[in-house]
Amino acid sequence: MTPTQRRHFLRAAAAAMTASPWLGQAADSATTAPATNEGMQNLPAHWTGKEQIGMLLYPGMTALDFVGPQHMFSSLMGAQVHHIAKTMAPVTSDANLTLLPTTTLTRAPRDLDILFVPGGGDGTLAAMQDAAVLAFLADRGGRAKWVTSVCTGSLILGAAGLLKGYRATSHWATRGVLSDAGAIESEGRVVRDRNRITGAGVSAGLDLGLTLVGLLRDQSYAETVQLLAEYAPEPPYNAGSPHTASPAVRAMTEAMFPQFNRKARAALIARKEGRRRS
Amino acid sequence: MTPTQRRHFLRAAAAAMTASPWLGQAADSATTAPATNEGMQNLPAHWTGKEQIGMLLYPGMTALDFVGPQHMFSSLMGAQVHHIAKTMAPVTSDANLTLLPTTTLTRAPRDLDILFVPGGGDGTLAAMQDAAVLAFLADRGGRAKWVTSVCTGSLILGAAGLLKGYRATSHWATRGVLSDAGAIESEGRVVRDRNRITGAGVSAGLDLGLTLVGLLRDQSYAETVQLLAEYAPEPPYNAGSPHTASPAVRAMTEAMFPQFNRKARAALIARKEGRRRS
Repeated sequence: MTPTQRRHFLRAAAAAMTASPWLGQAADSATTAPATNEGMQNLPAHWTGKEQIGMLLYPGMTALDFVGPQHMFSSLMGAQVHHIAKTMAPVTSDANLTLLPTTTLTRAPRDLDILFVPGGGDGTLAAMQDAAVLAFLADRGGRAKWVTSVCTGSLILGAAGLLKGYRATSHWATRGVLSDAGAIESEGRVVRDRNRITGAGVSAGLDLGLTLVGLLRDQSYAETVQLLAEYAPEPPYNAGSPHTASPAVRAMTEAMFPQFNRKARAALIARKEGRRRS
Repeated sequence: MTPTQRRHFLRAAAAAMTASPWLGQAADSATTAPATNEGMQNLPAHWTGKEQIGMLLYPGMTALDFVGPQHMFSSLMGAQVHHIAKTMAPVTSDANLTLLPTTTLTRAPRDLDILFVPGGGDGTLAAMQDAAVLAFLADRGGRAKWVTSVCTGSLILGAAGLLKGYRATSHWATRGVLSDAGAIESEGRVVRDRNRITGAGVSAGLDLGLTLVGLLRDQSYAETVQLLAEYAPEPPYNAGSPHTASPAVRAMTEAMFPQFNRKARAALIARKEGRRRS
């Protein structure tokens, strides 16, 4: 790149990224910069999309599962991100954070570029047995370009019949349940098999979201989103994986899951038998 | 620890952590386990607190700044986490995610264990000039045990006069503005100076939240929370810090900030002059 090309690229990029919700005020500097129009014309065409992104909201979901990817998806210039619930009523997370949907299962776009499902605890078990939610996921997931989840969200995808024969992951302590959905249990932070992309527990949503930004735009774009989010994590402890946690911490955490896993398995098996009978 | 002691500890821990919102269903297994009552009695007393935690919500804030810490704070057994806004009206983030407050500036508890402020773009500039918000922060922050922020939230703390003479950080591209709040600009993911704890950009909220969990409980507790959240990040790119991003990505990102920084400085200076005159 010549210095002039580079200058144009940077102007274009700055103008482009100002459409990102994070720093709306930068739009001012872009529009007042002398060469912005020229810059805007130089903008790589594929940096602006028109994706329809559908993210499921349900009572008792884990808010961080949802908001990590939502942050990344909403940085996709031109994309529309829909927060989809059964009704327009507020949805309260497992940690008492209440979110408002932007649309409903019936009104959400029929063709989605990304379908996303967050995880949770009791609320996830309920969603795995909710006929309206499962019908919505089976329908949109059958056509969506990318079918994605974080944490135990993959168990809901599984209940909707969307993971049969696919490699997939989930929260580390619940991954074993995936086989009852016909999925091939895989270990990994972000597991991709064809157009299914499933993330590990809770915080894996940031990695999954950024991975999708890279897939839908390009590496420079995704890296700019990463730098804007200052996503250079420094966890103060080293216990985030069952491989690095102490045996006591791991045992303590595993002891919380048998009942959840038993109920999740029962829900998947009942669903399978229901499909067989019908 | 003898095997019996260890068994008791693990039962206690499992029972204890079931009070965490993440896996409510585990409470069932805990209460049906034979030795749970005994286990509950063995629970380390300091694992359950009664903290009052106040988290500010304002229009145009970055949702992930808020939800990272909210996830960690809400794992503190016995703590009450308040989502505090000017009114009970829904609050929409810079990325169009709408959250409901649980209380207001005037009704929030007067004595807080943690006061927390998220960052954002235009919305943050507005909050830095909002007399009611600043009066609330100055009041609660004067008595709170911990005064904390993520990203440009530190500029709001600064506008409220809470960082004068304290080392503090902010989003990397806005850190230089802190000197206009009388703070000592510091580089760091989570910067602690006495009872002020400020985090770097957006995603630093997970590190800040987990750091506070460790301070308010202990390392085992925080590590269990980390493992539950599977917080073993694997960013798909290495551009999360200005030190690791390519020069082009860094320049592109920096180009978005001059106007924000100019306006933030002006707000801090106007505030200082206002205080001098009054």
